Amino acid sequence: SVNPDLASERQTASFSVEKLTTLLDGGAEHTQLRRAVVETIQRDPVFSRENQYFQSQNERYETAVRKAVHLQKKMHEMGWTENGPESKYINRALSGDIAFLLHYVFMRSISMLGSDEQVAKWIPLASRYQLIGSYAQTELGHGTYLQGLETTAVFDIATQEFILNTPKISAMKWWPGDMGRSATHTVVFAQLYVHGKCYGVHPFIVQIRSLQDHSLCPGVTAGDIGPKMNFEHVDNGYLMLQNVRVPRENMLNKFCKVQPDGTYVRQGSQKINYFTMTTVRIAILSEEVVMSLMKACTIAIRYSVVRRQSKLKPGEQEAKILDYQTQQEKLLPPLAAAYAFHFLNDYLQELFDKAYREIQRENFDLLPELHAFSSGFKAMVTQYCTSAVEICLRACGGHGYSSLSGLPSLYTKILASCIYEGENTILLLQTARFLLKCFNAASTGQPVPPSVSYLAAMKHGKCPAKNKLDFLCPDIYTEAYQHMAARLVSSTTAKLQDLIKSGVQEHDAWNQCTVQVVQAAKAHCHYITVKNFAETVQKLDTKAGIQKILKHLCDLFALHGIFTNAGFFLHDGYISGAQMDMITASYLDLLAVIRKDAVPLVDAFDFTDESLNSALGSYDGQVYQRLYEWAQKSPTNKQISPAYEKYLKPLLHNKLSKM
Amino acid sequence: SVNPDLASERQTASFSVEKLTTLLDGGAEHTQLRRAVVETIQRDPVFSRENQYFQSQNERYETAVRKAVHLQKKMHEMGWTENGPESKYINRALSGDIAFLLHYVFMRSISMLGSDEQVAKWIPLASRYQLIGSYAQTELGHGTYLQGLETTAVFDIATQEFILNTPKISAMKWWPGDMGRSATHTVVFAQLYVHGKCYGVHPFIVQIRSLQDHSLCPGVTAGDIGPKMNFEHVDNGYLMLQNVRVPRENMLNKFCKVQPDGTYVRQGSQKINYFTMTTVRIAILSEEVVMSLMKACTIAIRYSVVRRQSKLKPGEQEAKILDYQTQQEKLLPPLAAAYAFHFLNDYLQELFDKAYREIQRENFDLLPELHAFSSGFKAMVTQYCTSAVEICLRACGGHGYSSLSGLPSLYTKILASCIYEGENTILLLQTARFLLKCFNAASTGQPVPPSVSYLAAMKHGKCPAKNKLDFLCPDIYTEAYQHMAARLVSSTTAKLQDLIKSGVQEHDAWNQCTVQVVQAAKAHCHYITVKNFAETVQKLDTKAGIQKILKHLCDLFALHGIFTNAGFFLHDGYISGAQMDMITASYLDLLAVIRKDAVPLVDAFDFTDESLNSALGSYDGQVYQRLYEWAQKSPTNKQISPAYEKYLKPLLHNKLSKM
Repeated sequence: SVNPDLASERQTASFSVEKLTTLLDGGAEHTQLRRAVVETIQRDPVFSRENQYFQSQNERYETAVRKAVHLQKKMHEMGWTENGPESKYINRALSGDIAFLLHYVFMRSISMLGSDEQVAKWIPLASRYQLIGSYAQTELGHGTYLQGLETTAVFDIATQEFILNTPKISAMKWWPGDMGRSATHTVVFAQLYVHGKCYGVHPFIVQIRSLQDHSLCPGVTAGDIGPKMNFEHVDNGYLMLQNVRVPRENMLNKFCKVQPDGTYVRQGSQKINYFTMTTVRIAILSEEVVMSLMKACTIAIRYSVVRRQSKLKPGEQEAKILDYQTQQEKLLPPLAAAYAFHFLNDYLQELFDKAYREIQRENFDLLPELHAFSSGFKAMVTQYCTSAVEICLRACGGHGYSSLSGLPSLYTKILASCIYEGENTILLLQTARFLLKCFNAASTGQPVPPSVSYLAAMKHGKCPAKNKLDFLCPDIYTEAYQHMAARLVSSTTAKLQDLIKSGVQEHDAWNQCTVQVVQAAKAHCHYITVKNFAETVQKLDTKAGIQKILKHLCDLFALHGIFTNAGFFLHDGYISGAQMDMITASYLDLLAVIRKDAVPLVDAFDFTDESLNSALGSYDGQVYQRLYEWAQKSPTNKQISPAYEKYLKPLLHNKLSKM
Repeated sequence: SVNPDLASERQTASFSVEKLTTLLDGGAEHTQLRRAVVETIQRDPVFSRENQYFQSQNERYETAVRKAVHLQKKMHEMGWTENGPESKYINRALSGDIAFLLHYVFMRSISMLGSDEQVAKWIPLASRYQLIGSYAQTELGHGTYLQGLETTAVFDIATQEFILNTPKISAMKWWPGDMGRSATHTVVFAQLYVHGKCYGVHPFIVQIRSLQDHSLCPGVTAGDIGPKMNFEHVDNGYLMLQNVRVPRENMLNKFCKVQPDGTYVRQGSQKINYFTMTTVRIAILSEEVVMSLMKACTIAIRYSVVRRQSKLKPGEQEAKILDYQTQQEKLLPPLAAAYAFHFLNDYLQELFDKAYREIQRENFDLLPELHAFSSGFKAMVTQYCTSAVEICLRACGGHGYSSLSGLPSLYTKILASCIYEGENTILLLQTARFLLKCFNAASTGQPVPPSVSYLAAMKHGKCPAKNKLDFLCPDIYTEAYQHMAARLVSSTTAKLQDLIKSGVQEHDAWNQCTVQVVQAAKAHCHYITVKNFAETVQKLDTKAGIQKILKHLCDLFALHGIFTNAGFFLHDGYISGAQMDMITASYLDLLAVIRKDAVPLVDAFDFTDESLNSALGSYDGQVYQRLYEWAQKSPTNKQISPAYEKYLKPLLHNKLSKM
């Protein structure tokens, strides 16, 4: 039975939850397919996550491998394919809790970087699981800066082999997933040397474990890097190579080749490589990051209408904590952001599809924009979602801190997204470089992509809003964001130029501006997100109830952003102090409005209880009952601790005898 | 041997590290004692934390109990007492990784709330460990709002006993430390009923486990609440009572008593109770929270001069990551904050000592101020330090995410401090109520404590600074903070009054102002912190080198606060946009200045490698070597996973046979 406090929230929804779900899925047929896939997966006991919070790192790994192997069977049985429409729903149903994800990165890197012969040889082996692949790029001492990698691959003409070595400890491969215990093969990135000359970093296929008994190959040292904040199920590994030889054919050679006589040949365009990184970043945002925020919002908001604490009015029953303005201020902006980022993902997907069509026509013009934007949005969205999940966790008080709430694991997982696939600060600096370049181009009348043409058209006006209702007009706030982003790009460009003019060397000058250019890059991404949300809502004019609530969320997202970044808007007087008070008033009014639909708005994300895996967030709101039941299953309750016999009993009895 | 990149940082210190350490300790004799205690503890293998990151919850618990029992012996052996000068250093050496902390809360609550007879009976038993105590206040459905507790204690005249019951699941005690597996006794808070009348929440001593065999007493259900984000070593527990009877004498009755005939008598003043909470909050800040931030800064800053990545100038070696402005901006403000909060703790301790002297003279006048401030500072400092530790973690990239860096456990532990001992938002609301009350009093000419007298004296002027150097003048920035705090208190008071005048009911009006009053409370605490830091530095005029670097840190703390909260200062034009640019310039300049002393500034915290327990943060900077050595000890490398035989081998071999 559903907790009555939660049930009552659903009776007053101002819109159809099912219609909103369908909208989020992109159509009723997608909703149907998603539900079918999720149900199939979650009905299968092998995929259960029931005892996950109680498992050790070893148990999590074993379970993840079991699931990965079972998934192969399941997919075959169901007729699902890796590139089929079901795949993203499979991911959703499993919540990423599965092994061999790097196996697919291994395959993708061969497909992208390998010659036709290499693809023909390795891809069938990998797709039939005749080997398990990994991807060994990062080293103990080297991350984002690929040129700094220290692993070497020296070409030996006599044997027509490459000899791979880890010259020192900082050159050890470190972090690659599936490599610590599972992989038999991996793609190793190493500095290529031919005749003593270094040709830079290249990828090599290296076998690291026997296919017969899984023992390490000669010259290979490998293992697991130990405990982490999350991803206990993944065997992130280390790898050291001592004179490990691979045949000449094992260098992935679509773009570069070493001929038998040692001649080094470059061929084709590598530009497409950027595209791969872009693909991964866009996929992470929609399949991992925004999804995690949606889950956290679902858990925290459902709990906040079940949990009662203190009294709003004397004499009344204790109030639902979501009725406190401070709680609304914690949870509703993240909810609005989850919607904003969902629609941003659609925007990025469109941009991506367009670029892909052009690339197929050998036109790479859209790549720099796509690269710059996917970097910036990856950084902005992961940063925002990480903070927001933390807010959700803390907003649930002590129970949020219990692993059984599901929030700790959502947090520790999403936190990693700020670091992997490009550290956020470095990504924002890339976006910033692009923006400054565009600003300079636009200022001198050269053409720039439409999305950044606003940079050149900055007006030095003031915001025309006269009262708090004016700030519910998307044109008003979108223009404020646009003005602010353009101002930051323009003022940091000016600072950079001033420094250079004053004699500071260009790289030093750049370093001295980086804190501010990062702000500019974030401001640009924030602006595009607001603009896209507003435009998406506008296009929905046929679905009245849904358009109305999404309009509220869009307003909230925009005004919350101004409220929390007030300094940027007030700085040049575009927004006045009096207008900031109007914005605050409208913002706080919106909290009370959206609060009424908060539960239906998270119900629309349509997560099953299994995928939330939360004692606080289940659909029925039986929070306390579930916490109690789950706690009883904990291994801490499964045994009398040896601590009693060993330490407590002697302590207590020793003293008793002295009584 | 010390990593040369780290060693070189120590050669250029602008001050004596040892002298700064002594200053932080409060004198050379304290430094000496601290080092002696820490060394004694850390030399004892029972207290080792070596394999902590590899242990399960059960193992952590067992280790913590073992340490607690061993500590008793050790203290006896060394002649250390619980209230002796060594005790805070013992804590520091153990990093809180020990059981039975609630035993001391049990004892303190009896000392505070029990009659002389009760103290005489229970305290000797507890201090001789003839029982193990816990403290059972929080319930599954009830936290901060004590009046809402649902556990009942009904007085039975016939037997002269209280009958304790858990009437429903939400009334189950939940979270009390040491209760899940260890405690034999606990103080239970329950609604007292006599003759059917409820007298509110009172504390009762209840035995829950047998002293003979540790089995649960009749009517008692208890166990462990399962996994949490941290504190795996603590057996936070649940407790359900069914008709559990305790004698009349077990109600702690210093302030309230039930006489044999059922007459309820109140006696004495309960005001002193506030004082206990205050004590705990102040202790947490200095012994837990600020210490954790200092550790995180030590780890991240040392790592950031060992780690090299990318190039600042083309053609040069890869740069130390601390040479990037963006990295400085992440790590140096937290470092400055660690110093700011250290000195704030001294300030709070003085306030506390003064109040304590007054209380001993039965003068409770300072209590409201002390209560309001300890609440607000607890909230501000825990919030700030939690964010700062997260920043440190992320600033170390992938390696920060490894448990072996020590940062994940620092983070997950400090996060709890935002929730326990009063949830932060609720605490800030209490501070805000006090500030608004003082503001109203001051406005009508009534006396207020000196620390808030500024509220009435708000000037509507503008900041007089003319160039970026003016903002390195403590008077300039302290006044800016003061102005901002006074403005926020005044404007929220005005909003509240307007709402009430317009007919909104008082509690609704308050709720509608809470987001803003919380901002005002934070602003007040921020102001006091800056003011206190500036005054502390000023008083140090004899120690030139140290005063200079601390002045830089104070400036950085202050300007960083303005930079990141620019909106509050720009709002009414007190700071202009042009002045904000000067602040930004001074702030960024300071980063480059303090960066030079960053390593000596964390060395001065004087943490041993054992207490940091970090592969990234050790004194010698042998980061990569240590990560590799520690990872090899992980249980994930101690066995061939059964996953190979069970799942991988059949998969690979099955496919091989089809080749």
